[in-house]
Amino acid sequence: MRFSINGEEMDRSSFWVKDWKIILLDQRRLPSETVLVELSDLDEYVDAIKTLAIRGAPAIGAFGGCAYALCLRQGCDPSDAYNRLLNSRPTAVDLRNCLDEVKLAYEKEGIQSSILKAAEIVEGTIWSCRIIGKIGEELIHEGARVMTHCNAGALATLNWGTALAPIRIAHREGRNIFVWVSETRPLLQGSRLTAWELSQEGIPHRVVVDSACGYLMRKGEVDLVIVGADRVCVNGDFANKIGTYGKAVIAKELGIPFYVAFPETTFDGDCACGDDIPIEERGEEEVLEIGGNRVSPDGSEAFNPAFDVTPGKYVTGYITENGILDRGELLKKTPGPTPQRSEK
Amino acid sequence: MRFSINGEEMDRSSFWVKDWKIILLDQRRLPSETVLVELSDLDEYVDAIKTLAIRGAPAIGAFGGCAYALCLRQGCDPSDAYNRLLNSRPTAVDLRNCLDEVKLAYEKEGIQSSILKAAEIVEGTIWSCRIIGKIGEELIHEGARVMTHCNAGALATLNWGTALAPIRIAHREGRNIFVWVSETRPLLQGSRLTAWELSQEGIPHRVVVDSACGYLMRKGEVDLVIVGADRVCVNGDFANKIGTYGKAVIAKELGIPFYVAFPETTFDGDCACGDDIPIEERGEEEVLEIGGNRVSPDGSEAFNPAFDVTPGKYVTGYITENGILDRGELLKKTPGPTPQRSEK
Repeated sequence: MRFSINGEEMDRSSFWVKDWKIILLDQRRLPSETVLVELSDLDEYVDAIKTLAIRGAPAIGAFGGCAYALCLRQGCDPSDAYNRLLNSRPTAVDLRNCLDEVKLAYEKEGIQSSILKAAEIVEGTIWSCRIIGKIGEELIHEGARVMTHCNAGALATLNWGTALAPIRIAHREGRNIFVWVSETRPLLQGSRLTAWELSQEGIPHRVVVDSACGYLMRKGEVDLVIVGADRVCVNGDFANKIGTYGKAVIAKELGIPFYVAFPETTFDGDCACGDDIPIEERGEEEVLEIGGNRVSPDGSEAFNPAFDVTPGKYVTGYITENGILDRGELLKKTPGPTPQRSEK
Repeated sequence: MRFSINGEEMDRSSFWVKDWKIILLDQRRLPSETVLVELSDLDEYVDAIKTLAIRGAPAIGAFGGCAYALCLRQGCDPSDAYNRLLNSRPTAVDLRNCLDEVKLAYEKEGIQSSILKAAEIVEGTIWSCRIIGKIGEELIHEGARVMTHCNAGALATLNWGTALAPIRIAHREGRNIFVWVSETRPLLQGSRLTAWELSQEGIPHRVVVDSACGYLMRKGEVDLVIVGADRVCVNGDFANKIGTYGKAVIAKELGIPFYVAFPETTFDGDCACGDDIPIEERGEEEVLEIGGNRVSPDGSEAFNPAFDVTPGKYVTGYITENGILDRGELLKKTPGPTPQRSEK
């Protein structure tokens, strides 16, 4: 996607590398402010991931790979940098996959090779998402009403998105389509980020509270659901933003097709099933406060899991660079990029 | 429930009548401020319902009945007052049922009788909820983890609540119980009001975003779900706060018991099935803004249905004054209080 800052047109959406620094579009401040920040050391890279200045599984994978290569170039301790980046967010596997690729290149051929590998991951992610868009757009017919959750768009990747790539391409090809945007509490990535991306491209959409998605599906207002993923397991189970599981169960109950779109970096060939995925629990204040103001009474506590796991039986198809796959085809056609796996 | 304002202990929670005025605990300002407001004419009564200063099906039923009787006493046009109150919120049937009872009393025997009828509705609602609590508490065993949605507590009725009445009584009888409070976007009646009620009584609870309820159910963290209702149909379908339907589908999928608690005033013997229930659509700003601050980009629109309909097939049991009923028993044992029906 393209957007402009101070009149200058940008053609990469989440981050890019310039003069050995990372330039980041700060997603915490969207859509009210479009602000670029410059990051130049490990502390800043880790903080950007933890605080969701950058987010989305493929984006933090590519970002982590670049950050790691830049740390190696700065002479950081390789093991310390790897571990701190790896532990910045636990659920999305892209981060581990991309760090491992850069680490392997570094250990085999040194710093230059690790930098080239990071650049390759960036280009690969953009290319994968474009293919996902081309492959997935066949599912979105004229007049289709698509529901999505959270933000699996250009901001969550680097340029096209995963769940939003087919939507973007169907719209560019002239089809009249409509998107239901689930707001995605607690951090509102749907109403802030997905709505912003769709607005930038003039794609018709409406924001609804997460609880309204079942109502819309039951009323016949949804033709298909497409979401992204943070980790896809060998058996087809997958982790994604909290609330995905409920939408999948309701879609199945009503016979509405439910698709997951993701690039190979999101596949975890070492993870047999969803029960093995670590689920990040974030701070209670994200639930108890909104915009810095306390909502709940002072004595109340919260519980804030950031992701849930959707069993593969609820998935109609997996939209990948290798086609729209069913559960049986998933392991065969999506080996994933993990160097560790190929050594086993 | 009891709460105190400026040191004075209150024993009615949502409103009461004093010196021919309605004293209302303003629910828009809870939990950060505990403020009583005095309402004295039709404009103020209608505004209080529309803006959710008072809310919850049994509470607005009883409030509407009192407001109508007070309007009649003030010499308002009976038909105008009836219609304006009736149209203030469309989904909860208690409002219509209670207005009809007061209207019938007025038409038969005049103003004094309508005032007595309103007082009778108030006492009847308190009594009904207490019985619902006593009947429902048998479902809540030692150690039970109960999930609820929105606020179906003392604030939504007059003193005990519907869904919260069994929880309150089980806690008072010394059982260790725990409540998962679904925050209930957009107006956060769960995290504001249910959490406040539970805090007042020291009942252990945690607030979660609405999207986390499926995750908790799938993880085995929920023993049963109890919600309130805004209108229950002859076939067992019922309307309740948006998001109830999705919770019911997930509970059924996982074999978790799902109960609906309501007094007779919420039963609509004229409504054959859920498709006949009018669903209130509220302003887009409730979704697009939080605490007066815009969340979504300026170009984005929202859709804001306040309720959804849950088919009776997802309900394990209906907790009423007449026992815990199944769908077959519902019509037989819950004739509802509508005078119009008895004349048919």
